[in-house]
Amino acid sequence: MSAKVRLYVDHPLGAGQSVPLDRDQAHYLFGVMRLAQGTRVALFNGRDGEWQADVAEAGKRGGSLTCLEQSKPLQLPPDLWLIFAPIKKARTDFIVEKAAEMGAARIMPVVTDFTNSERIRQDRLQAHTVEAAEQCGGTYVPEVADLQKLSRLLDHWPEDRQLMFCDEAEVGNALELAADAHKDAPWAIVIGPEGGFSDGERKRLAAMAQSHVVSLGPRILRADTAAVAAMTLWQKTLGDW
Amino acid sequence: MSAKVRLYVDHPLGAGQSVPLDRDQAHYLFGVMRLAQGTRVALFNGRDGEWQADVAEAGKRGGSLTCLEQSKPLQLPPDLWLIFAPIKKARTDFIVEKAAEMGAARIMPVVTDFTNSERIRQDRLQAHTVEAAEQCGGTYVPEVADLQKLSRLLDHWPEDRQLMFCDEAEVGNALELAADAHKDAPWAIVIGPEGGFSDGERKRLAAMAQSHVVSLGPRILRADTAAVAAMTLWQKTLGDW
Repeated sequence: MSAKVRLYVDHPLGAGQSVPLDRDQAHYLFGVMRLAQGTRVALFNGRDGEWQADVAEAGKRGGSLTCLEQSKPLQLPPDLWLIFAPIKKARTDFIVEKAAEMGAARIMPVVTDFTNSERIRQDRLQAHTVEAAEQCGGTYVPEVADLQKLSRLLDHWPEDRQLMFCDEAEVGNALELAADAHKDAPWAIVIGPEGGFSDGERKRLAAMAQSHVVSLGPRILRADTAAVAAMTLWQKTLGDW
Repeated sequence: MSAKVRLYVDHPLGAGQSVPLDRDQAHYLFGVMRLAQGTRVALFNGRDGEWQADVAEAGKRGGSLTCLEQSKPLQLPPDLWLIFAPIKKARTDFIVEKAAEMGAARIMPVVTDFTNSERIRQDRLQAHTVEAAEQCGGTYVPEVADLQKLSRLLDHWPEDRQLMFCDEAEVGNALELAADAHKDAPWAIVIGPEGGFSDGERKRLAAMAQSHVVSLGPRILRADTAAVAAMTLWQKTLGDW
């Protein structure tokens, strides 16, 4: 019997472990998906891999599952940050969902000189990563960081973290060149906002010792397209693909 | 004076050419964007490159532009078809937009054994490609084909067109291997529907002489993510990036 439902829970998982369900989870499993007692479910919590579990108690306002056996070990994504400037709501949601699917370890919205939107709902974006992880079979949920200024992030940039800088104004193909020297280093991808980076930001990013300028082709990509394209190139060259 | 607005028109473009505007275009340029007579606009029609033009007449229900000089030659994308099974409306819209941005020449929605949605609005999808081309600086608008059955498309498959088959159930890395032998061939990318291909479809696709199986990493990607990731790999290895 294979599980049709894959659910993220914030609870330890292990053989024989009982996992309580909150109201929303019970509503989803028993109200929406109509699971009955004894139905198999796949669980993950971002730490203990994926576990098969059976419905032990099914109620309208709660219930519990019992863990049986591990079906996947924890698979951490590469140590890759995705840094981007939040744009329109739907496209920001999309970037966050895609970062979880594509295997980023951390998602970092930043305010740039030309950022249009300066507010995010961190909890809502985090919920998107959970849903994406449930859907894509991942056992890890990337953290969505609080919004911060790009300039402040760069002020405290970790010395060993390499930076894939996707600059639409530049022609660069530095990723293959960087692959051998920085294969095991932590990395970050930085995607410009609509309207691009300011001259000051571009100069600063390009001048960083950790910076590797990469072109994403001859057409100007929207930020959400650029995020997926950049993660694809990175995963293929340096990541877990 | 550089153009702030980039507009697709279905009209010949050339030095001194007068370009009439229909009601929708006039509403956009003069009602929404509030352009006045003499304002510079960039035009393209998918055939004659990009032209700078000035507003000659601005009216509520129409108007005209006068072409001055070509600002970009026509840049055709590589001969790449993107074949995909339409999914939920927002994600189908997204795939079509992304195909135009990423540089596909033709967008072909297909019905597969496990396709959920069997209707598309071809005209609406075509309008998305126009908007994407306006936005990304492209001078070409990919055609959105009518919905057809995948099986029928494969029945009449062109002998020389290579096929990048992104199969979540397979591990394959055939693209680099194919790059030398089929660098100048026409290509197609085929993306599976939610729920994947049927066994029959997978066998048929894998058995084709033109088929090159490519893996998109260890996580299961949604169809829209897979489309962008596959086009990225293709453009990087065989295309115009």
